[in-house]
Amino acid sequence: MTTTTYRTTWPATTGRPPSEDEIVRLHGWWRAANYLSVGQIYLMDNPLLRTPLDREHVKPRLLGHWGTTPGLTFLYAHMNRAIRQRDLNALYITGPGHGGPGLVAASYLEHTYSETYPAVTEDEAGMRRLFTQFSFPGGIPSHVAPETPGSIHEGGELGYSLSHAYGAVFDNPDLLAFTVVGDGEAETGPLATSWHSNKFLNPLTDGVVLPVLHLNGYKIANPTVLARIGDEELESLLRGYGHDPLFFTGGFEGEDPLAAHRRFAGVLDEALDRIAQIKTDAADAAAAGREVERPTWPMIVFRTPKGWTGPKEIDGQQTEGSWRSHQVPLSSARDTDEHLEVLDRWLRSYAPEELFDDDGALREEFASTAPSDARRMSANPVTNGGTLLKALRLPDFREYGVEVSRPGASTSEATRVLGGWLRDVVAANPHSFRIFGPDETASNRLQPVYEATDKQWNAQFVPQDREEHLGRAGRVMEVLSEHQCQGWLEGYLLTGRHGLFNSYEAFIHIVDSMVNQHAKWLKVTNEIEWRAPLASLNYLLSSHVWRQDHNGFSHQDPGFIDHMVNKKAEIVRVYLPPDANTLLSTYDHCLRSRQYVNVVVAGKQPNPDWLSMDEAIAHCTRGLGIWEWAGTETPGEEPQVVLACAGDIPTIEVLAAAKILRTRIPDLRVRVVNVVDLMRLQHDSEHPHGLSEEEFDGIFGQDVPVVFAYHGYPWLIHRLSYRHDRRSRIHVRGYKEEGTTTTPFDMLMRNDTDRFHLVMDVIDRVEGLGTRFAGLRQEMADERIHARAFAYQHGADPSAIASWQWDDNADQAEADAGTVAADTGGDNG
Amino acid sequence: MTTTTYRTTWPATTGRPPSEDEIVRLHGWWRAANYLSVGQIYLMDNPLLRTPLDREHVKPRLLGHWGTTPGLTFLYAHMNRAIRQRDLNALYITGPGHGGPGLVAASYLEHTYSETYPAVTEDEAGMRRLFTQFSFPGGIPSHVAPETPGSIHEGGELGYSLSHAYGAVFDNPDLLAFTVVGDGEAETGPLATSWHSNKFLNPLTDGVVLPVLHLNGYKIANPTVLARIGDEELESLLRGYGHDPLFFTGGFEGEDPLAAHRRFAGVLDEALDRIAQIKTDAADAAAAGREVERPTWPMIVFRTPKGWTGPKEIDGQQTEGSWRSHQVPLSSARDTDEHLEVLDRWLRSYAPEELFDDDGALREEFASTAPSDARRMSANPVTNGGTLLKALRLPDFREYGVEVSRPGASTSEATRVLGGWLRDVVAANPHSFRIFGPDETASNRLQPVYEATDKQWNAQFVPQDREEHLGRAGRVMEVLSEHQCQGWLEGYLLTGRHGLFNSYEAFIHIVDSMVNQHAKWLKVTNEIEWRAPLASLNYLLSSHVWRQDHNGFSHQDPGFIDHMVNKKAEIVRVYLPPDANTLLSTYDHCLRSRQYVNVVVAGKQPNPDWLSMDEAIAHCTRGLGIWEWAGTETPGEEPQVVLACAGDIPTIEVLAAAKILRTRIPDLRVRVVNVVDLMRLQHDSEHPHGLSEEEFDGIFGQDVPVVFAYHGYPWLIHRLSYRHDRRSRIHVRGYKEEGTTTTPFDMLMRNDTDRFHLVMDVIDRVEGLGTRFAGLRQEMADERIHARAFAYQHGADPSAIASWQWDDNADQAEADAGTVAADTGGDNG
Repeated sequence: MTTTTYRTTWPATTGRPPSEDEIVRLHGWWRAANYLSVGQIYLMDNPLLRTPLDREHVKPRLLGHWGTTPGLTFLYAHMNRAIRQRDLNALYITGPGHGGPGLVAASYLEHTYSETYPAVTEDEAGMRRLFTQFSFPGGIPSHVAPETPGSIHEGGELGYSLSHAYGAVFDNPDLLAFTVVGDGEAETGPLATSWHSNKFLNPLTDGVVLPVLHLNGYKIANPTVLARIGDEELESLLRGYGHDPLFFTGGFEGEDPLAAHRRFAGVLDEALDRIAQIKTDAADAAAAGREVERPTWPMIVFRTPKGWTGPKEIDGQQTEGSWRSHQVPLSSARDTDEHLEVLDRWLRSYAPEELFDDDGALREEFASTAPSDARRMSANPVTNGGTLLKALRLPDFREYGVEVSRPGASTSEATRVLGGWLRDVVAANPHSFRIFGPDETASNRLQPVYEATDKQWNAQFVPQDREEHLGRAGRVMEVLSEHQCQGWLEGYLLTGRHGLFNSYEAFIHIVDSMVNQHAKWLKVTNEIEWRAPLASLNYLLSSHVWRQDHNGFSHQDPGFIDHMVNKKAEIVRVYLPPDANTLLSTYDHCLRSRQYVNVVVAGKQPNPDWLSMDEAIAHCTRGLGIWEWAGTETPGEEPQVVLACAGDIPTIEVLAAAKILRTRIPDLRVRVVNVVDLMRLQHDSEHPHGLSEEEFDGIFGQDVPVVFAYHGYPWLIHRLSYRHDRRSRIHVRGYKEEGTTTTPFDMLMRNDTDRFHLVMDVIDRVEGLGTRFAGLRQEMADERIHARAFAYQHGADPSAIASWQWDDNADQAEADAGTVAADTGGDNG
Repeated sequence: MTTTTYRTTWPATTGRPPSEDEIVRLHGWWRAANYLSVGQIYLMDNPLLRTPLDREHVKPRLLGHWGTTPGLTFLYAHMNRAIRQRDLNALYITGPGHGGPGLVAASYLEHTYSETYPAVTEDEAGMRRLFTQFSFPGGIPSHVAPETPGSIHEGGELGYSLSHAYGAVFDNPDLLAFTVVGDGEAETGPLATSWHSNKFLNPLTDGVVLPVLHLNGYKIANPTVLARIGDEELESLLRGYGHDPLFFTGGFEGEDPLAAHRRFAGVLDEALDRIAQIKTDAADAAAAGREVERPTWPMIVFRTPKGWTGPKEIDGQQTEGSWRSHQVPLSSARDTDEHLEVLDRWLRSYAPEELFDDDGALREEFASTAPSDARRMSANPVTNGGTLLKALRLPDFREYGVEVSRPGASTSEATRVLGGWLRDVVAANPHSFRIFGPDETASNRLQPVYEATDKQWNAQFVPQDREEHLGRAGRVMEVLSEHQCQGWLEGYLLTGRHGLFNSYEAFIHIVDSMVNQHAKWLKVTNEIEWRAPLASLNYLLSSHVWRQDHNGFSHQDPGFIDHMVNKKAEIVRVYLPPDANTLLSTYDHCLRSRQYVNVVVAGKQPNPDWLSMDEAIAHCTRGLGIWEWAGTETPGEEPQVVLACAGDIPTIEVLAAAKILRTRIPDLRVRVVNVVDLMRLQHDSEHPHGLSEEEFDGIFGQDVPVVFAYHGYPWLIHRLSYRHDRRSRIHVRGYKEEGTTTTPFDMLMRNDTDRFHLVMDVIDRVEGLGTRFAGLRQEMADERIHARAFAYQHGADPSAIASWQWDDNADQAEADAGTVAADTGGDNG
C-alpha cells in the first residue's frame, strides 16, 4: 500500500481570551443576527423599526422556526471570532436546518448574501426584501436549503448532519466542519450511529468535525431524550462515542449574555486548542514515522434555552425555554394589540438602532467580528463543491474489458472486471475518489481495489488486520450502515469530490429517504445559477434479486429503481448492463457525469459475455438496441415478435428463449432487443434520454407484440413505455414478489420470467402460433412442472439434494445462451 | 389521567449457582445444539455419524452462517437454565438472524420443532430431514424466518432487534425479551438509537428487555466497531445508553468450556437478580404510592470467538475467532480429503454418541435442562402473537362523525375528528392498543387522545411535563425516530396487539426498508398454517404532499404508496378518504383487519365534508363510487367525460372543475367518481379488491375519456388501472415532483392538478369541445397565469405579501366545492 502524505497546515494558534470590547462587539453581531431572524419570521415592512410597529408591518402568514435559531447564531458568532483569530478553514453544518432564518441572517451580515443575491442589498430596502422573501412564494425556503449560501445540508429531514460533516472533511485535512446536532435530530437512527464516524477519520489525512450537541430541550411537542438523561449519563454516552465533551450551559435564569459569551469563548477555545494539539501531534508522529492513532476528539454540549432571547412568557405560558418556542411563538401579532406589543418589545430588545447604520447596514464595529472572503463560513468554497470539482483521471476502460470472440462464448463476473478498472481509478485519484459500502465491497467482487488501497479504519488494530487490507488511510469506507455510507458519500460529493456506493440491491431501500433528499437538492441546484454542478451519486447494486435465491425472500427486492424513477427525470439514470464490458462502459460514463443519481444494477456471479468492447460502447451509447445476431429477422420485413430484455439474468433467459424459438419455430421472425439505459423506454417528452415515437417503433416494431423480460417489478416497464405503448402490446415479465429459499432458476420460474414461460408468452401472443404450436407450448409447461417438482416434491430428501445440480439451471442457461451465436454462426461483427 | 395498575407477578427468585452436574448437562445441551447446527450447514446423510464420514454425506452446496451460531446456542442454553430455575416467561430475539441453524437446533432440542413439523421426528430419520431441509428448495430459510418456531424477528435485514424487543414487552409486564444484538447489527442507525428505548419503558406496566451485545468481533469481511473501541469506551457508551453492563469474555485461549459455563451462569444470574430487584422495587414503590422512576437496567456484553468450537485453523489460516468463520468455513469438505477430515473431527468433537440415544433423540439428562411447554422460548405464545390476539373493543364510529347537511356545506379537520374516536378506542383498550409517532401526534391533530391517555415517558421529568401529557405510562409513544416507531409497533403487533403509526407523509420513506420486511413476513406467514393472523400495521399519513407548501420541496413526497404497492396484493391496502366521515369509516375497518399493511393518507387541515356517515359507510364499503350529485349525467346515457379523484385535495379540485363545467358547458354529461380504496382500480385478477371489467366500465364508462386527479405520482394510476385501460383513455394529473416554498393552490398549479387545468384537460379530451370552447380553455389558462404571476412576479414585495390571501386559494376551493351541491339543489340523499 502506498501511503499518501499530506502537508499539514492546520493553524497551531492557541486561543486568546477575548477582550471586553471583543465580547461587546460579538454580542452586537449576535443581536443583529437574532434581530434579522425574528424579522424574517414576522415582518414585511418597517424592517429597522424606524416607525412604531403597526399590525400592517406583520406578515399575514407566519412561518418558520424560532426555537433553535438563537443558539445557532450564538455559535456562529463565536466561530467567527475563532476563525479570525486562528485563520481557520471552516464550514457550518446546521443539523436543525429549520433554523434557516439564523443562517440566512449570518450570511447577510457577512455580505455573502448580497454578493450572491444582489437584489438583497445591505440597506433598509434590502432588509425589507430579506424579510419578506422568507418562506414566501417566489422567495426562499424556511430551511437551510440549496438557496442558502454556505449550506451543504438542508436539514429538513433530520439525522444526517454528522454523516455529511464527515463526508465533507475526508481528504480535506485542513477543513473544520463545525456541526450543530439538534437534540431532536439526535434521536434518529442515522444520527445515533453517525457519532461512530470518528473511528474512520484519519487525523492526518482528513479534516476535523467539531460536533456541538445543541440541547435546547424540546422537539415539536415533547422534551428530547438527551436533554433528560442527566449530565452524568450524557457524558458517559459521549465518551462512549469516542469524544471528550466540554459542557456549556448558558442563558438560563437571566444570565447576563456578556457573561455567557465570555464563558463560551473559553469553551470553544478549549475545544479548538485540543484539536490543534491533535493535529500537531499527528503531524509530529507522521514525521517521526510513528503510527497516528485515533485521538479522543473534543465536542461541545451546548445547553441553552429554546427560543433564547425571545419572550419569556406569552399569555402567561412559558415560552423561552419551552417547546412553545419551537416554531412561531407569537402567532397572532397581526391580530391583537397585546401580541403586537410583545413582538415590538422583543424586536427592540436587540436595539436595532445601535446595530445598523443610517442606511441600514450593519455597523463596522460589529461587521468586523466576522471573517472575510473564503474564510466566511457562508462563502467557504467547499460549500459550493462544484466550483472545486476536478474531473477524475480515468484510465481507459477499454483496456480492462474481456475478450469476446462470440456472444456467450465465455463468462465473467462483471463486478470483478469492474473492480480491476476501479483499482486503477483509485490509484490515479488518491485524494478525490472513494468507494463506500456496508461491508460488502469484497462480497460484491470489487476486491481488486485492495491491490491499490486499503479500507480506512481508525479503531483498534490487531496484527492480522493489515493482511485484511485495513489501514489508517484508504479509499474504501466500510461500515455496516447504509445510512452512514450514503451520508458520507453525499458529504464527499457536495464538497466537490467523486465516489460510488456499492450495496446489496434489496437493502439499498434503507436509504430511500436520504436519496430522495439528495435528488431534491440536485434538482433545486439545477435551477440555482451560482451552484456549480457536482459529481453524480453513483450506486452499484449487486447481489441482486435473481441471485438471492439462497438467502431467500427477505433479501429479494428490486424496488429501488421504482423509487428513484419517481424523482425528476433530469436527475435520475438507471442502467442495467447485461455483461462485463457494458458494465465498464456504463461506469466510465457514470464517473464522468454530473448532477445525476446513477443507479447501476449488475450481478457478481459468472455471467456470459455478450458484447465485445466496441460493441458494448456502441450499445451503451445508444442505451438500447437490436441484437441482430440473437434474432431471426428477415431483412426488410417487420419482425413478428420482439423479445426484449433489461438486466443480466433476463438477458440470459431471453436469449435462451430465442434459441428455443429458432430451433422449434424456425420461420418465426424474432427480434431481440436489449435495454441498458432504462430511461430510453420513456417518451422524449418525459425524459432527456427518452425515444421519439419513430425511434421507439424503429426498435420495437410497429404493432408487433413485445415480450419483455425485466430485472425488476414488471409494471415499471409499462409505466416507462406508457406513452409509447398506447395499444398495450408490451407484455412484461419480472419479479412479482414471489420468492423463498430456492435456486436461481426456480426464482425465475416462480415469477414466470424463465425461458420456458417466455416461449409460452410468444406462442400466446403472436397470432396464429397458438394452434400451430400447442404441442410446443405444452412441452414448455411440462418443462416447468418438471423442474419445479423436482425440487419441491423431494423437499428435504437427501437423494434429492445429492442429485439436484445446484447451479445447473443457471449454468445451463449460460451454456444455452452461449450457443446462441454458435448456432447461427454469428460473431460479434 | 387514569393510571392502570398491573398485578406484578415477576418471579422474585434469585439465582442459585449451578451444580457441577448441571453445568455438565448444560454443556451437553450446548454441544448438541452446535452439533445440529453444523449438521444443518454441512450434512445430508449420516446425521449421527454412525458410519465414517464420507464425501457423499456432505451437501453439494453449502449455505448458512456458522460464525454467530455457537454464541447464540450458548446463550440459549443458559437462558434455559434460568427459565427453569426462576420460572421466567421469556422469548429469545436473535439480532443476528442468519444464525438460523442455532435457533432451529434449539427448538428441535426442546421438542417444539417436531410438534410444529411432525415430519421432522426426533430420531435419525428426522435429524436427517432437519439437516437436509436447511437452506434447500422446498426446505427452510437459513435465517430465523417466520418458519422458525419462537421467532418474531427474521434478522435478515439488520438493525431492528431491540426495537422489536421493546415492542414485544410493552404491556407485557411479566415478559422478558432476551435480545441478542450482533456487533455488526450494532453499527446500523436503527439499532444505535434503539438503545434509548429504555427511556420509554415503564418498569411496572411493561416487561423487560435484557440486551446481550454479542461481540464476536467480525462482520462479513471486517472487524466491528464496538469490538475495537476498548472496554472502557464501550462501557462508557453502554452506561450512556442507560444500562449497567456486565462483561463476559469467554472461550479464548483454550478456556475450558465448563469454566466458561460456570462464569457465565454467574453473570446471567447477576443480571436476572438485578432485574428481579428492579421489578420488586417498582411494585413496592407503586404499592406505597411512590413514583416508579427509570432504573438502570442491566445488560450483558458477551465477548466470545466468532465460530467458537469450530476449527481453529483451516489451511493454516485462523478460522475460529476470525471473519473466516462468518459463513461456511469449510467450503470444500465434499471435494478434498483434508477438508472432509477437518469436518469429521469438528463434528465428532461434540461427541454425538454421548448426546443422542440409540434412536437419535437427545438423551434425557440433556433434554431436561430445557424448560417445557409454554416456558420454552421456542414455544412462548407471544411469538405466535395471533394466537393471543383479541379484537379491539371499538366504539361505534358512526357516533363520532360530523353532520353533513349537504356536500361541502361544512368543513372539518379529518384527523381531529378521527382523534375523537381514537380517544375512546384508547380508553376502551387500555392494554392492547398504542399510537406511535415521531413527535407529530398533536401536529397531526390527534390530540383528543390526550383526554384519555398520556405520552409514555420515563426519562427525567420537570413539573410542566404533566400538563403536557407526559406520563410514566400511556398509550402514545413519541420519539423522533421513524425507525423506532416502526420497530416498536411491529414488535407490539407481532406479539398479538394493535396499533397505528402516524407520521408526515414525506418522511415515512425512512421506514421503506423496514416495512418491506414486515410485509414479507406477513406474506410468508399467510402460507404457514400454524402462524395465527396478526392485527394489521396501520399507517396514518398526514401533513401530506399538498399541504407542505410552506415547508417546501424537501417535505413533499407521496411515494410511500408506490413503494407499498410493489408488495404482494394480498398484503397491501391503500386508502385515500376524502373527508372526515370516510376517514372514520376507513379507520374502523383498518383496526378490525388482520394481516395487512394499511396505508391511510388524510389531511389535517380544514377540508369540506362531502358525505354523511351513512353515505361514507356505503362509499367506503364499495371503495369507489359515482357521486351523482356532483356530476351532470343524463339518466340512461353514457357520460361524455369522467372526472375521477382520489385524495382529499384532488377531490376538491375535481368538484370545483365539475362546477365550472356545469356552469360553462351545461350540456356536457360529466360523471364524478371518487376513489377511497386505491386497490379497487386494479383488475380482479391482480388484487382481491380489484374490479371486474364490467364493474370498471360500469363506473368509468365505456370508451369515455377519464380525467383523473390523484393525490400522488400520476403514473401509479396508470399502473393500477393498466389491465382495465387497454385503450389508454385515462388521463392522470398528480404530483410530479414540482414543488418549492409556495401556497397550497400554487402547489396544485405547479403540478397541473388544479381545477383550471382539469377543465382544460376535459376540453382537450372530449371530442368536439376543443373548437367550441377554445375561449373557455383560454380563460382557464389565463386564470392560471394570473394566479401564478401574482405570487411570483411580486416575489418578496411587501405589498404582495399583504394583499396575497394566503389561504384564500384553498378557502376558495372549499367554498366553490361547497356550492356544488347548493347549486344543484342536491342533498345527501
